[in-house]
Amino acid sequence: MPLHLEVQTAVAKINKYATHESGDTVEVVERPQGGISLVMADGQRSGRSAKAISNIVVRKAISLLAEGVRDGAAARATHDYLHTQRGGKVSAELTIVSIDLVTQTLVISRNARCPILLRQGEIVRWLDDASEAVGIHRNTKPTITELTLSAAISVIAFTDGVWAAGFRTGVTLDLPALLQHIDPQGDANAALIADAILAEALRLDHNRPHDDASVLVVKVLAVQPPDPVRRLFMRFPI
Amino acid sequence: MPLHLEVQTAVAKINKYATHESGDTVEVVERPQGGISLVMADGQRSGRSAKAISNIVVRKAISLLAEGVRDGAAARATHDYLHTQRGGKVSAELTIVSIDLVTQTLVISRNARCPILLRQGEIVRWLDDASEAVGIHRNTKPTITELTLSAAISVIAFTDGVWAAGFRTGVTLDLPALLQHIDPQGDANAALIADAILAEALRLDHNRPHDDASVLVVKVLAVQPPDPVRRLFMRFPI
Repeated sequence: MPLHLEVQTAVAKINKYATHESGDTVEVVERPQGGISLVMADGQRSGRSAKAISNIVVRKAISLLAEGVRDGAAARATHDYLHTQRGGKVSAELTIVSIDLVTQTLVISRNARCPILLRQGEIVRWLDDASEAVGIHRNTKPTITELTLSAAISVIAFTDGVWAAGFRTGVTLDLPALLQHIDPQGDANAALIADAILAEALRLDHNRPHDDASVLVVKVLAVQPPDPVRRLFMRFPI
Repeated sequence: MPLHLEVQTAVAKINKYATHESGDTVEVVERPQGGISLVMADGQRSGRSAKAISNIVVRKAISLLAEGVRDGAAARATHDYLHTQRGGKVSAELTIVSIDLVTQTLVISRNARCPILLRQGEIVRWLDDASEAVGIHRNTKPTITELTLSAAISVIAFTDGVWAAGFRTGVTLDLPALLQHIDPQGDANAALIADAILAEALRLDHNRPHDDASVLVVKVLAVQPPDPVRRLFMRFPI
C-alpha cells in the first residue's frame, strides 16, 4: 500500500495586549514549480512601525519566492533590501518554511533569535544555531535546514511573544513537553497544535500578551485513504 | 453589548479527474492598510498550461493589491497585463473578494461567466451581470459589488468545474437550496460550507471531476464573546 503524504499548516496569531496592530506578519505563497512557502516576520518594536517593517519584509520575500527564487537567496535578498531601505537601522526576525515539490524537501530558513522546534518521528530537537535578524549587519544570511519530505515531520516556529511568554512571572513555555502532551502520536491536526501553543503562551502572560505572538506549525503526515482536496481556512476578528 | 464581527474564509479545491495540476489558482494576501483579499483564477483549458495562466494572473493581481492598488484597478491592470503578454489569445476567469478595513466594505470584483451567490441575512441573490474573462478583449473591466461590512454576509464564489458539475448527467447544483440546507441559521463554519459544496459537485460528477473545481466562501458573522486570535489552516496532498 503506497504511503500518501499530506501537508498541514496552521498559524495562530495575537496582538500585544491593548495594541491594535501586530508587528508580526505571516503570509503564504504558492511556489511556481509546486509546493508552498510560509513566511513569518517579527518587526522591531510593536504597533504601527513594527507592522510596516514586518509587512515589507514578508512582501519582499513572498514576491521573490513567487518568482522561483530559492529560499536562501530570497532571505539574503530580503535582508539586503531592508538594510538598503532603512540604512541598517531597522531589524526584523524572518523565518521561511517551504514545502518544495521540485526537490521534495522541507526547507527551513531562519534569521531569528527564537529557535525552531523540529520533530521527526520520535526525535525532537531545537534548531537554535546562532542566527541574526535581517536588516542590521552586512552579509547576514539565514541558517538553513533541509529535510526530505516524509511522514511524521512537525516544524514549530514562533515569534518572541511566544518564546518569552511568562518571563515576568518566571514561568516559561516547555514546548517539547507541551507538544508531547498535545500530539503524543504525531497525528494531531496542525491547527489544534498551533491553538494549544498560543493558548499556553497567553495563559503564561495572564491573557495580556506582553508582545505580539505568532505560532506557525507545518506538519507532514501519512494519511490513509488519500484525500485529493486542497483546503484553506482563515478566521479573524474585525 | 457591542457587536463583534469575525471574518471566516475557506477554500476547497480539487483537480480535474486524472490531472496532476489544477488550472485553478486561489491565493490570499493581506491588504497593506488592513483586511485581506482572496484572488481566484481559472485558466483557459486544463493541466499545465492552464496552471501557468492562472498563476500569472493571480500573481499579478496579488502584487498590485499588496501595493495598495484598489480592487477594480487591480482587475483591469491584470487584464491588460495578460492581454499584452499573450496577445489577446489566452483568457482566465478572475474573481477578487476583499475585506477592506479602510472603507469597511466587502468588495467583490468578477471577471467570469460563473455567477457568485450572495446571502445577506435572509436575502439570497445571484451576482450574474454580464462579465467577461480577462485576457481577450480590449478594455475588459470587472463587475463590482460593494457591501458595508456587517453581520450575516456570505459570499460563495466558484469556478466552472463546480458550476457545470453533473452537466453530463443533466443534474446540476442547486446552490441556494444546498446553502439553506448546510447553513440554515447563517452560523455554520465557512470551511464546512466550502467542503459541502465541493463534495456535492464531486458527487454530481460521480467522483471524477470533469474540470478543475474550486469553491471560495467568505463570511462575515457576529460572534460573542469576541476571539482576538487570527487563525489560518491549510491542508493538501503531496
